[in-house]
Amino acid sequence: MKLTILGCYSATPKANNNPTAQVLEIKGHLFLIDCGEGTQVRLRNSQVRFARIKHIFISHLHGDHFFGLPGLIATFQLLGRQAELHIYGPKGIKEAITLLLKLGSSWTSFPLYFHELTTTCSEVIFEDEKVVVKTIPLKHRVYANGFLFAEQPGERKLNRVAAEEYNIDICYYQNIKNGRDVVLDDGTVLANSLLTYDPSPAKSYAFCSDTKYVPENVSLLRGVTALYHESTFLHQHADLAEKTGHSTARQAAEIAKASEVGMLILGHYSTRYSSLGVFKDEAETVFEPVFLAEDGKEFVI
Amino acid sequence: MKLTILGCYSATPKANNNPTAQVLEIKGHLFLIDCGEGTQVRLRNSQVRFARIKHIFISHLHGDHFFGLPGLIATFQLLGRQAELHIYGPKGIKEAITLLLKLGSSWTSFPLYFHELTTTCSEVIFEDEKVVVKTIPLKHRVYANGFLFAEQPGERKLNRVAAEEYNIDICYYQNIKNGRDVVLDDGTVLANSLLTYDPSPAKSYAFCSDTKYVPENVSLLRGVTALYHESTFLHQHADLAEKTGHSTARQAAEIAKASEVGMLILGHYSTRYSSLGVFKDEAETVFEPVFLAEDGKEFVI
Repeated sequence: MKLTILGCYSATPKANNNPTAQVLEIKGHLFLIDCGEGTQVRLRNSQVRFARIKHIFISHLHGDHFFGLPGLIATFQLLGRQAELHIYGPKGIKEAITLLLKLGSSWTSFPLYFHELTTTCSEVIFEDEKVVVKTIPLKHRVYANGFLFAEQPGERKLNRVAAEEYNIDICYYQNIKNGRDVVLDDGTVLANSLLTYDPSPAKSYAFCSDTKYVPENVSLLRGVTALYHESTFLHQHADLAEKTGHSTARQAAEIAKASEVGMLILGHYSTRYSSLGVFKDEAETVFEPVFLAEDGKEFVI
Repeated sequence: MKLTILGCYSATPKANNNPTAQVLEIKGHLFLIDCGEGTQVRLRNSQVRFARIKHIFISHLHGDHFFGLPGLIATFQLLGRQAELHIYGPKGIKEAITLLLKLGSSWTSFPLYFHELTTTCSEVIFEDEKVVVKTIPLKHRVYANGFLFAEQPGERKLNRVAAEEYNIDICYYQNIKNGRDVVLDDGTVLANSLLTYDPSPAKSYAFCSDTKYVPENVSLLRGVTALYHESTFLHQHADLAEKTGHSTARQAAEIAKASEVGMLILGHYSTRYSSLGVFKDEAETVFEPVFLAEDGKEFVI
């Protein structure tokens, strides 16, 4: 699983800071998460093949999280894209994109599907045999969702020595790896656990931006391999965080600690602070390990 | 008059090529012309003070000419802008911007005025005592306008020696500079031309993008100081230019020659060509001088 940060700053732009966009590579999928203005150029810089992106997840409809989407879709069209594209985001996203394309007298010649989100409970929005994606209800100034990307549990690993000892025909091996017990000719039932080892643990990545502190999400986030949690402010500005629907670095770390996640990645920094180190320092008083998202940085999870 | 090219490439982005946006400084005004995705970052790079931009002119509603506008307006709002903002562009632009702001549950606290354009004849869309702005009807795949920015003619220059010779009271000087004749006490009429010199010639800048070859505009463009004309293609691809509603470098030069402009600036290059020099070479077979727009370049006109 590889996460590439295309942009991780909050709304007002500086010359070299980009608004939120990430690419998650998971089990052969390439998911684009949020799409702030300029994302298509950053995708080019990161040498991501546009055609591999088939699913785009938009957390909320503030400009710094989705104003790059119309341009990306227009570029897909200009490049002669054929592959279908699925967009998951708050209700209204279809109307916005449709209007912008209509004003340009264009439409896509590739299949474009909108999956508009409205509920405030976690729901499964994508699932195949390899990956499941759920929403994470966030609390911001507008309707917002985070996203939990989880590998499906892998198949169990065959204990070949045991299987041969019990003289099990090779044609049953796949069933055993799928978790089935085996009934021998004499009627004896061999529990699957005698014949297999646990699979490699399924990894997961949770994206939480933009949001105020939402401890209710701890049960949903429990044990995720990596948690990205916004930290727009430091705790000295907790009042501003509360007022604007954002979190502090300390609050992000509190969520990470309570959820017992594997690692915490901070991002969505206000540009009022002169360095990023202060966010890491503050979070590490509560939880470790803490990493800082930075434009262009890659995390192998 | 100073023109800054923020971006000058056609639609599909490369890592370091930006879509169309220009800033024209004319008689104290700072006009933004088109606003492709990422314009706000380029404005930052060019150290343009956002508050000085009070008028934005959008040629047409293809993404590479206006998808940077919603983000720029959102940033103006975040920065606490107070000054009014006027946007001139095709009908539909108000609906688009309004919807995007509404989806983000925001509106501007500064006065935002839309001047929607619909006619296919040239019309005056802005005028004050220093500058007049007219539309230039273009022919593209969607409704499109270029813009002609012209300094108002300056006042005539007083011939102080002549004025003193005729013993003219100083209180008449402003009237004389405004072009009035003078009646002496004995009834003699002194023609203004005896007392003044011609003013400095008023400069003008014409922006024509995107458009196919429109020779009908020659009378409107006659004698402009500087003409920016798109040259998406070279003449070897004249069929593509015709089909997509664009011009070749040679066609841009034909317009410049017939209009007897002071200088031609080419731009809106297709990324299919490996260098820009070929556009200049082709145009110079018809007209000189030719300059190449390049991202970040400034022209003092």
